[in-house]
Amino acid sequence: MKQRVFAVIKDHPQTLSGRIFSFSMTALIILNVVFVLIDTMKSQPETLSSISRIVEVVSVALFTLEYLLRLWTADLLFPESRPAVARLRYVVSGMAIIDLLAILPFYLPMLIPIDLRILRLLRLIRLIRVFKLGRYAAGLGTVGRVLKKQAPALVSSMSVVVLLMIVASVLIHHVENPSQPDQFDSAFSALWWAVATITTVGYGDVYPITPLGKIIGAVIALLGVALVAIPTGIISAGFVDEINTKHKSDSTCITCDECPPPPPIK
Amino acid sequence: MKQRVFAVIKDHPQTLSGRIFSFSMTALIILNVVFVLIDTMKSQPETLSSISRIVEVVSVALFTLEYLLRLWTADLLFPESRPAVARLRYVVSGMAIIDLLAILPFYLPMLIPIDLRILRLLRLIRLIRVFKLGRYAAGLGTVGRVLKKQAPALVSSMSVVVLLMIVASVLIHHVENPSQPDQFDSAFSALWWAVATITTVGYGDVYPITPLGKIIGAVIALLGVALVAIPTGIISAGFVDEINTKHKSDSTCITCDECPPPPPIK
Amino acid sequence: MKQRVFAVIKDHPQTLSGRIFSFSMTALIILNVVFVLIDTMKSQPETLSSISRIVEVVSVALFTLEYLLRLWTADLLFPESRPAVARLRYVVSGMAIIDLLAILPFYLPMLIPIDLRILRLLRLIRLIRVFKLGRYAAGLGTVGRVLKKQAPALVSSMSVVVLLMIVASVLIHHVENPSQPDQFDSAFSALWWAVATITTVGYGDVYPITPLGKIIGAVIALLGVALVAIPTGIISAGFVDEINTKHKSDSTCITCDECPPPPPIK
Amino acid sequence: MKQRVFAVIKDHPQTLSGRIFSFSMTALIILNVVFVLIDTMKSQPETLSSISRIVEVVSVALFTLEYLLRLWTADLLFPESRPAVARLRYVVSGMAIIDLLAILPFYLPMLIPIDLRILRLLRLIRLIRVFKLGRYAAGLGTVGRVLKKQAPALVSSMSVVVLLMIVASVLIHHVENPSQPDQFDSAFSALWWAVATITTVGYGDVYPITPLGKIIGAVIALLGVALVAIPTGIISAGFVDEINTKHKSDSTCITCDECPPPPPIK
Repeated sequence: MKQRVFAVIKDHPQTLSGRIFSFSMTALIILNVVFVLIDTMKSQPETLSSISRIVEVVSVALFTLEYLLRLWTADLLFPESRPAVARLRYVVSGMAIIDLLAILPFYLPMLIPIDLRILRLLRLIRLIRVFKLGRYAAGLGTVGRVLKKQAPALVSSMSVVVLLMIVASVLIHHVENPSQPDQFDSAFSALWWAVATITTVGYGDVYPITPLGKIIGAVIALLGVALVAIPTGIISAGFVDEINTKHKSDSTCITCDECPPPPPIK
Repeated sequence: MKQRVFAVIKDHPQTLSGRIFSFSMTALIILNVVFVLIDTMKSQPETLSSISRIVEVVSVALFTLEYLLRLWTADLLFPESRPAVARLRYVVSGMAIIDLLAILPFYLPMLIPIDLRILRLLRLIRLIRVFKLGRYAAGLGTVGRVLKKQAPALVSSMSVVVLLMIVASVLIHHVENPSQPDQFDSAFSALWWAVATITTVGYGDVYPITPLGKIIGAVIALLGVALVAIPTGIISAGFVDEINTKHKSDSTCITCDECPPPPPIK
Repeated sequence: MKQRVFAVIKDHPQTLSGRIFSFSMTALIILNVVFVLIDTMKSQPETLSSISRIVEVVSVALFTLEYLLRLWTADLLFPESRPAVARLRYVVSGMAIIDLLAILPFYLPMLIPIDLRILRLLRLIRLIRVFKLGRYAAGLGTVGRVLKKQAPALVSSMSVVVLLMIVASVLIHHVENPSQPDQFDSAFSALWWAVATITTVGYGDVYPITPLGKIIGAVIALLGVALVAIPTGIISAGFVDEINTKHKSDSTCITCDECPPPPPIK
Repeated sequence: MKQRVFAVIKDHPQTLSGRIFSFSMTALIILNVVFVLIDTMKSQPETLSSISRIVEVVSVALFTLEYLLRLWTADLLFPESRPAVARLRYVVSGMAIIDLLAILPFYLPMLIPIDLRILRLLRLIRLIRVFKLGRYAAGLGTVGRVLKKQAPALVSSMSVVVLLMIVASVLIHHVENPSQPDQFDSAFSALWWAVATITTVGYGDVYPITPLGKIIGAVIALLGVALVAIPTGIISAGFVDEINTKHKSDSTCITCDECPPPPPIK
């Protein structure tokens, strides 16, 4: 019985029932996220908010059941540990903490008195449920591996972007502040402009109007393009390397000592 | 006779007449698309709208003729099937359905009475004719193959972008709603902002104005740049792999069993 | 004497005097372009416009001298042709035509009477001088080779972008026209919006306001990011292939028959 | 004693105390940059500006101590030179000049009388301190190496972008000036538009309104996407090449002379 349940709820299921479970959970999580969005609407019809309440109660019930089943079958997930240790190992694992945080905000107001302001924040914490999808994201394996491997180069190149933005924002504040004291009231406002320019978002709420400011702006915009190209290059190289490594096992290249000796000559 | 017609209208034609046919069809389709655009203009001179009508009638006549010829020569396209089966196989193929949908909206009002509203929609369906160009897009082969191969990684990374946008939009709605109740009236408005920011479009119709909102906005804009870099990296790696695979046949690397025995020693 | 002049003015010069000539010409062309920009200013001080006139006369004199020298030394550029043929071959070469177009607008008003409107256009044609820089752009060799090689894939993927834009603009015109009849008066206005969205420029002069329009806009913006990634991937793969091909000659991979026979055994 | 100090302050430290020193210096520099930003705020509370003054004095004291210690241990950095020469070699090195410029603006007003305007500029020069972080940026090694190697291709492709922008701005000025004399008053204003369009920033402060202007704008925006793809491709190829070169040492490919002789035959 426990074996069967585990075959259904475990990650990367092989059985049909396991795949149906995965698919249903994914659909339920997406439904939950849609209702977090819907709940932010002010003038909501009565029907919709009662549907939202039903979805919430049913979801939390199912998520709680899922959590308890996973806890129950934890000894099959970590067969090398004793049952009690296996359960503890499961409870402190990353995905289990997300699972718990996804249902806790529902039970909390029942246990301790909570004021309205914190209640609104608790409703926001429901968003954590999207991270439950991480369990079903098998395809992200490669992406995650590449990002992890290239993290040092990515972090250091992004740091240069941040440094460039800070230098740019102090300079442009110095140049534009006399002409636009409201828009560029401090280098922090200029930092907002620098982020919008370097990422090429360009909302158009703040932009330089003096000739010198426009020159700095143009340099930042062009440098921004170049600096955006660097993380892209790093990630591309990571994926190319990943594919090459995968191909290596069936590669046609050989080393000398891997070669069998040539056939004996009589 | 049928052989000759087939040599002209078949995909990837080898003969001169076939190439002229391909080129003429491409030109006719582009002309059609241009007239779909022109037809949306309100204050259209009389001459233009009568030209548009003539283009429509001539195009549908030619497209109908093309469809019938392709149906007639279907037994040469699928020589292994019996003529009737070959014709049926052709009719249910993707390109044939597009061909049919490209001419059907013209004939439909003649067959059944249709009100004006649906008539306007039918005129829109003429846009399907652009997909007829797919037949002549030989160069897209590589692009399509790469996208198909990398689809799982692309879909999973794009899903992360969508998740990030949803989280960002609920957060920014929570932060900006008190200051801009009209712009950020619900998380759906915030989602529109999140799409415009993460794709770096940045229309400037909605943007955060509170310090905390600007911090979230800056994080999203910077993460957006990083997340846009991931699909680019995946696609780049796909094209690199495609080129490498193509080069492999004339590769200078060898496997052991491909090695000729060393020259005999006397 | 002619040999010495040719050593100076020929492309990719090896001598010091040749490099000084290249550098001076580059500087002169950039000075010319700056003055084309300056000439567009309305309220120009008297001094500046007289400097501009002097720069123009001196530049044309030098460019004319350069053209005559190149014509004179054409028989050294094409040593296999007879002098007259060599000169003709030079005159009809791409760079020589650019050289001629760069000086012709100056001489034209002296030869035939020209009205003011065409005179303004002739001043614009001076911009052709920037293409003279092409002669000195040795580093562009790789870039040009990669773009040429990948042109079919680039053209076909860019065509898909254009098709997507046309479909998007007709759809959004249909959806947004009732709410914003001025902004989306025809699908051509919508096409301008589609270009700004797919390229992620996003000026913010036109944007959808209806829920359905925003959904179409979000899809286009996200697809736009993906479709921009494709040319980047194609070009990246082209550069990777270019570098790999360059490395192949000093590659550590070998074929069996390239191996010298093993040392004889006694 | 001097050996121990050097082990702590030298770049890429191996010891724990050296790593703590690196981390503390990085934190101090970031604190300094944050206070350069804070100092630009007009309505600053009294407490904050006095904290800023304290941070400045303490930082300069520590940076001065660091500079003197590095000068003192310079003979260990250049063991092959005589002490005096080693110190001189250190003083003229790039990082030492940055270190000096980072503290000089603090001491300058004590030495010579300086008016208020230059004093404000001196405060700006404190930004140079961010470049002190370069010392600790080990991860940037790869990025820097790739950019250096690909510099010629990057510079030449970026030059084409600049040329394209200049041509575009003169053309669009010619087309849009009659309709928008204020926005496109000279080709310099048009150049600002061209930068914002080609980099896809698109603030929306200037944009074409005439049909011909919109066509030029659309071409520039689409070409801009293509031209941004080129540096990305160049940088990607650089990183791929870097990774391949690193893998070469443990490559499974062999050269002939690396092959051991085949086993002797009896």
